[in-house]
Amino acid sequence: MLIIGEKLNSTISSVREAIKAKDVAFVQDLARKQTEAGAHFLDVNTAMGNEVEDMEWMVRTVQAVVDTPLCIDSTNPEAIQAALKIHKGKAMINSISLERGRVEGILPLVQEYGCSVVALTLDDNGIPKTAEERLQIAGRLVGILTRENVDLHKVYIDPLVLPLAVNSNNAQIFFQCIREIKNQLSVKTVSGLSNVSHSLPKRKLINRYFLTIALACGMDAAILDPLDGKLMTAVKTTQLLLDQDRFSRKYLQAFRAEMLED
Amino acid sequence: MLIIGEKLNSTISSVREAIKAKDVAFVQDLARKQTEAGAHFLDVNTAMGNEVEDMEWMVRTVQAVVDTPLCIDSTNPEAIQAALKIHKGKAMINSISLERGRVEGILPLVQEYGCSVVALTLDDNGIPKTAEERLQIAGRLVGILTRENVDLHKVYIDPLVLPLAVNSNNAQIFFQCIREIKNQLSVKTVSGLSNVSHSLPKRKLINRYFLTIALACGMDAAILDPLDGKLMTAVKTTQLLLDQDRFSRKYLQAFRAEMLED
Repeated sequence: MLIIGEKLNSTISSVREAIKAKDVAFVQDLARKQTEAGAHFLDVNTAMGNEVEDMEWMVRTVQAVVDTPLCIDSTNPEAIQAALKIHKGKAMINSISLERGRVEGILPLVQEYGCSVVALTLDDNGIPKTAEERLQIAGRLVGILTRENVDLHKVYIDPLVLPLAVNSNNAQIFFQCIREIKNQLSVKTVSGLSNVSHSLPKRKLINRYFLTIALACGMDAAILDPLDGKLMTAVKTTQLLLDQDRFSRKYLQAFRAEMLED
Repeated sequence: MLIIGEKLNSTISSVREAIKAKDVAFVQDLARKQTEAGAHFLDVNTAMGNEVEDMEWMVRTVQAVVDTPLCIDSTNPEAIQAALKIHKGKAMINSISLERGRVEGILPLVQEYGCSVVALTLDDNGIPKTAEERLQIAGRLVGILTRENVDLHKVYIDPLVLPLAVNSNNAQIFFQCIREIKNQLSVKTVSGLSNVSHSLPKRKLINRYFLTIALACGMDAAILDPLDGKLMTAVKTTQLLLDQDRFSRKYLQAFRAEMLED
């Protein structure tokens, strides 16, 4: 399972302030901590004021202290290109979709820089309600990426979970999408964790069990908070149960380091 | 999901002592508490000294204070019959298997009393290692029960999870069994939770995520400790995610009652 650290995101107010103030120590601290906690990629989002300039600063600031590759979280091809020009190692782009211009603007960058890419099952009509429609969009995205010779092992489809508070079957629709995408298409899958619990209490609890079930359905990656000890405990315990932890090595190691939180 | 409370079991030393001492208050307290915590059945096991006599005492003692039906946990047809003779409501029998004599001795009681029954995927050679062999045993058990006109809606197959510490794919084999039994046979499925974590640390953690994944695979019932607040929180959160909790009613009710444990 690929862990994408979510914390360097300008929608979080403390991060937004840090970007405004060009607070190097704050950003580097979050980069280091997420990496130490097990993040394989760090999501970086600077969509606030001067996205391009802020993105360059963010990439430079983060990569000055960690080797962790970045997941460039933007809809702006200019900001993405600015990031990729200075990025060390192979980045991920978050994201393309079937919305007007999203593929055309970003696909050339995926090709030029050999990036991984997150592809959302979303078009100009928004997020479809049914699993069938999202699978159709996933199929069309994979078709486009295949024609353009993108390595499908680098493609992560995000079937976009909607809140349970809106419809009680929204998580089930998402789980079905993950299973079907894994069955039908030769791509990987990814998701954020927080949408599912929107406007319900004890959201972290819901997000945690959502992740466990999604991983059991075959999800390959998640954008999450690696500093949430209970969530990372869920990851390790789930990997143990899904035979992704030979000889229980990672689980026992986490136990000995007192990192398993009940 | 059907919850079978596991606590009235003579393999637990305090319960064994209570049975020996005929401690009515102790047993009735556990019966009440498990029922209040949401158990739909209470497992009762008295396989220690005078199983038949102890079982009669147990059934009378428990049913004097709760209406919850009992899950008669015994391999001894005489003890099961003694329980069923005095049991109020429809009991469950735990269990039959393909071991010599288990079907012949117990099936007549299932038929006579219209009980539900747990059927283990086990024969005289023990628990098969592979999912395929366990599915074969499940199929043979269902064949026998069908010929004997047992209502298959009352049959709960237990595919018997083996410890992860013995083989890292043991939980995955179990999950596969649950999915295949649900796909191929018109019966329900059940499991205990503790075998999977045998000889690993933080067993309750493993058992909890095991339950979540098993429920996501379609498991219908579990033999568990309903007094474990974190486990019952996992049950409620998982049901919310699997669209088994319309309008999040049970989850929100548990939240308001301060019963959701992080």
